[in-house]
Amino acid sequence: MDVSAVEGLPEVRPGDDVAELVAECADLQDGDVLCVASTIVSKAAGRQADLDDFEASDRARDIADRIAAVAGEEKDPRFAQAVIEESEEIILDAPFILAVTHFGHITVNAGIDRSNVPDADLLLLPEDPTDCAERIRAGVRERTGADVAVVVTDTSGRPFRLGQRGVALGWAGIHAARDWRGEHDRDGRELGVTVQAVVDELAAAGNLVTGEGDGGTPVALIRGFEFGDHGGSDDLYRSPEKDVVRQALREWSHVRD
Amino acid sequence: MDVSAVEGLPEVRPGDDVAELVAECADLQDGDVLCVASTIVSKAAGRQADLDDFEASDRARDIADRIAAVAGEEKDPRFAQAVIEESEEIILDAPFILAVTHFGHITVNAGIDRSNVPDADLLLLPEDPTDCAERIRAGVRERTGADVAVVVTDTSGRPFRLGQRGVALGWAGIHAARDWRGEHDRDGRELGVTVQAVVDELAAAGNLVTGEGDGGTPVALIRGFEFGDHGGSDDLYRSPEKDVVRQALREWSHVRD
Repeated sequence: MDVSAVEGLPEVRPGDDVAELVAECADLQDGDVLCVASTIVSKAAGRQADLDDFEASDRARDIADRIAAVAGEEKDPRFAQAVIEESEEIILDAPFILAVTHFGHITVNAGIDRSNVPDADLLLLPEDPTDCAERIRAGVRERTGADVAVVVTDTSGRPFRLGQRGVALGWAGIHAARDWRGEHDRDGRELGVTVQAVVDELAAAGNLVTGEGDGGTPVALIRGFEFGDHGGSDDLYRSPEKDVVRQALREWSHVRD
Repeated sequence: MDVSAVEGLPEVRPGDDVAELVAECADLQDGDVLCVASTIVSKAAGRQADLDDFEASDRARDIADRIAAVAGEEKDPRFAQAVIEESEEIILDAPFILAVTHFGHITVNAGIDRSNVPDADLLLLPEDPTDCAERIRAGVRERTGADVAVVVTDTSGRPFRLGQRGVALGWAGIHAARDWRGEHDRDGRELGVTVQAVVDELAAAGNLVTGEGDGGTPVALIRGFEFGDHGGSDDLYRSPEKDVVRQALREWSHVRD
């Protein structure tokens, strides 16, 4: 399996066609997996925003006050408002804002980025990353004939472990997870590990070669990944009622208040 | 960057030298990263155990009762005892046992595996995965002269997202994380993403090619990964006082009781 950065992409601007830009910079083949950073997907979709676009509600001011009190950090109430508007639920408001985006991803600040945004204060995550992945996949096929998979990625922190790693926000042409249920070990015992989140692992692999900052490239190409003859599933985000940690955080923050 | 499975490894038995086995099956070069599944590291270190080795304490019987009550699942109290003995702390006891291993990794059942263990009921995680990684690295160097990095890996679930993915338990010859602090985007703004957990991403990349079950291979070779000219750090496990989710779970489970 080969993992490489796609070089030569221009700065992406609102209205750009990501599939076209990628197809021009990479020689794509059937079975390739493209890991596309959500930053360029958002830029192309015009998801730049300014703080002035958001009018802070009482809730947003309350969140900013709590973060100042708990973490000693100045948070612009308009930024808190942007997070609220981009979220289905705020699970935790301090010391940082942990939010569930409308498409189900749980991350700090609803994934709103304050760097890498020319001529704007903020970059919001794509509204529907799986739809974006499908469009890029269709666009690549139209232009090159290649049947590729597309994973729209972000980098994100996580509980328990420090540092950020690549994660999948949306995907097309591949299942999110590979199912090993029913497989057995060498002694015939059923496997403990049953469902492998391959799109997250692809996003992580891609993130090893793309880098960050002004030297970074937003697209990785993975060639030679074999999904194999397994069942697949597309549930990647735990449902609230089956997510013990989410429930605990939610109830704990209420008890704490 | 090329990611491939190391083929031809025999079933690993207590007392085996993992470095020797890997060096015989792969043509290693300076800069290679070996992702070695903790299962074979544990097997070589004799970390197989039987349920009869554990005498269930009151706490273990209590955990088994709670899991039966909350999740409707029969859990052998001796298994709960094994988890207790392998753990620094039990963060959550039901509907599943979420534990902190003595080396800091937070995972269900302290990572104890009930599959892939010939002639034993259980396979415990390595006691000190970073020490194991260092020994494998030194052993490879001694046998082949190659200066490789070693990541001892596991597959593990995680909060918020379904499915399992590869994670690093221990590492040698590479920093756990790559530091992007001080780097700037194309507009000169400081990056939001600062610390990248590269060993977890390497583990995830390796897991894409190794597979599970009787067709799986326990070692992946990653060639061509460039850490680059960045600062590095080896903190991968959040300290308890800085881990909001861990605190919340701990306090929530007390409130719930």
